[in-house]
Amino acid sequence: MRNFFKVVDIETVLALAGSFEAQPTEAVDLSAAHGRVLAEEICADVDIPGFSRATMDGFAVQGASTFGASEGNPAFLAVTGSVAMGERPDITVGPGEAVRIATGGMLPVGSDAVIMVEHTESIDAETIEVYKSAAPGQHVIARGEDMHSGDGVLHRGQRLRPQEIGLLAAVGRTRLEVFRRPRVGILSTGDEVVPVDVMPQPGQIRDVNSAALAAFIRAAGGLPQAYGIVPDDYEALLAACRQALQANDMVLISGGSSVGTRDFTIDVLQALDAAEILVHGVSIRPGKPTILARAGGKPVWGLPGHVTSAMVVFAVLVRPFLEHLGGMDPQFLRRIQVPARLTRNLPSVQGRVDYVRVRLVAGSDGIEADPVLGKSGLIRTMAIADGLLCIDANTEGLDRGAVVPVELF
Amino acid sequence: MRNFFKVVDIETVLALAGSFEAQPTEAVDLSAAHGRVLAEEICADVDIPGFSRATMDGFAVQGASTFGASEGNPAFLAVTGSVAMGERPDITVGPGEAVRIATGGMLPVGSDAVIMVEHTESIDAETIEVYKSAAPGQHVIARGEDMHSGDGVLHRGQRLRPQEIGLLAAVGRTRLEVFRRPRVGILSTGDEVVPVDVMPQPGQIRDVNSAALAAFIRAAGGLPQAYGIVPDDYEALLAACRQALQANDMVLISGGSSVGTRDFTIDVLQALDAAEILVHGVSIRPGKPTILARAGGKPVWGLPGHVTSAMVVFAVLVRPFLEHLGGMDPQFLRRIQVPARLTRNLPSVQGRVDYVRVRLVAGSDGIEADPVLGKSGLIRTMAIADGLLCIDANTEGLDRGAVVPVELF
Repeated sequence: MRNFFKVVDIETVLALAGSFEAQPTEAVDLSAAHGRVLAEEICADVDIPGFSRATMDGFAVQGASTFGASEGNPAFLAVTGSVAMGERPDITVGPGEAVRIATGGMLPVGSDAVIMVEHTESIDAETIEVYKSAAPGQHVIARGEDMHSGDGVLHRGQRLRPQEIGLLAAVGRTRLEVFRRPRVGILSTGDEVVPVDVMPQPGQIRDVNSAALAAFIRAAGGLPQAYGIVPDDYEALLAACRQALQANDMVLISGGSSVGTRDFTIDVLQALDAAEILVHGVSIRPGKPTILARAGGKPVWGLPGHVTSAMVVFAVLVRPFLEHLGGMDPQFLRRIQVPARLTRNLPSVQGRVDYVRVRLVAGSDGIEADPVLGKSGLIRTMAIADGLLCIDANTEGLDRGAVVPVELF
Repeated sequence: MRNFFKVVDIETVLALAGSFEAQPTEAVDLSAAHGRVLAEEICADVDIPGFSRATMDGFAVQGASTFGASEGNPAFLAVTGSVAMGERPDITVGPGEAVRIATGGMLPVGSDAVIMVEHTESIDAETIEVYKSAAPGQHVIARGEDMHSGDGVLHRGQRLRPQEIGLLAAVGRTRLEVFRRPRVGILSTGDEVVPVDVMPQPGQIRDVNSAALAAFIRAAGGLPQAYGIVPDDYEALLAACRQALQANDMVLISGGSSVGTRDFTIDVLQALDAAEILVHGVSIRPGKPTILARAGGKPVWGLPGHVTSAMVVFAVLVRPFLEHLGGMDPQFLRRIQVPARLTRNLPSVQGRVDYVRVRLVAGSDGIEADPVLGKSGLIRTMAIADGLLCIDANTEGLDRGAVVPVELF
């Protein structure tokens, strides 16, 4: 009865992620930080900007000097100097005075607003007419308006997009602490599986999963290491699994969709040091025969053999584990689901979560989700699809026209 | 009058992308192809699968042998052998016969369906009872059902996601032709700009754009090369620009938001070999003072100095050029916009396209787009935002509650 197949739900599987330890951290240069997960809290080291700045080309003034100015009744101001870029101006702006300033220039003492050059006219070298009144603060970014020194601006567990890289530059960080990328070993099993560069004979198929899973792992922030095809043999699989576990933080065993191979996989997982089978069967379709074990404190997955099943299981179950190992804090995940209108009825079975591959197409009434039909062994269905539609366990099916959330991939 | 500022619309700018040449191509290994843009048409080299395969563990049969079988009236079949994985079975299935087969196994001659093992019971070593009838084709993927030899399955100009990497593996491609990544030089200008590792003095700000633009370029498939901060000086900028143009396929000049610097930039761009100013001002906000030139057949951009303006102009204008240079065919772009409900009224000016930074939040009635308020000089607004909402030139503004498309970044 060792293979007693007690199917658990997705939430039960996902809740196990927290029982694994996140990666240690390492320091990287800012130029290498894009896409990495921040492992420290980042505070502004200075007020940003550190001075009140002009946001337009024009003249720094006291707003009050311009109150009531209009086309018909311009205000006349004395131009007393100009602000050099990148320097603290040594001039003071008094009532009735104006100082030339360019976008980004520092406001001189006494000034509180900028008049756009378009709203002025030069009378002579030292006098301008102003046609519009400027409220204090107009066309100015105040000192500290972006952030104040000491403000927490980025957080541990956040993945760094280009915007965040810019923010790190703004607060002077050329080096920062990030989580190490989790290393993920990929074993492909199955006597029917041959390398990609081999012409498959009758009964054989090429190893699609090693290449596809490596790319999915990289996209999710991991470092994949493919170990090639392991024969459907207990000793061979055990040896390969031990080797992969030693060099990696997580291991995926792909292929092996038959009962015989699943038996091998379970036997091998139980034979590993400090091993425990956590999950053997998940109420998800495709992907039911998924196995998860803990071995030496690391997650080891037995993925379903069908190529699209393996991809769906990766997206729904494995990726959250990989993100957890990589230090991601779920509160910072930006996994936006796109609402789309379903183009046909979709049946489903209660008590099981169904993931349906869909294409997103522009319809007359917004985005439509068009299910990609085809068995889960068909790799082409994944290349056609834009995302996954989830039909939850309490739903018997979805009607055409229903608005459904689609997770892009 | 050299700086006559004739503002053009976004479409006019984007239409110019086609006047630049895409990159040459290069061969890469499959393991390095993820994220690259395919430069050839990919056809299946064989039928996939190359044989009819079982999609369940069970028995290969002639469906007709089971017609009418039920719990109360099982069919009895003679088990005449089993299919070894990865081999062509040398057995034939006749009426009333069954052959053991595992998921992925090749159907023996004569069989046309698979009965799941769960729907059978062993009577003795050579006989099973079958409790369900199997229609021909049941639990079988037919030869060529995924693709037929010669089918065009991937196309020139497509960016390769993990799924496509799997598809390439399936058709035996370990090496393939992709477009070279466009190299993009980044020059930062402005006397007020100091390197990231310098503590800014009053009037100075750190160089945010070099780091942020490099990450945006990488995310869009380019190879960034930052040339550091160039003084606000005609000769220095001209020399730096020539150097960057020689080593890159596109150049971005960032910073230089003041009229003075813009004048320098225009002068420098006109002084380059075989140079032509194509755009000087775009009806977009933020981002109006954008400059685009052609020099030596390559695009050179003068980006607005405000950091968020530069990012928006990158996302809306520069990225499509980068994608074009990188060989992307627009028909394969999967730039999905997320429909979201606006949380407040947004004013806008007709005749100009406004890009508003929004956060996406879960509302009671679906996803809501919450505008991030703040001037375009504020880098923090970009880190808070999930995407950009576009208000087109013919709209005077948007009402709270309107459903609007949001482009993620």
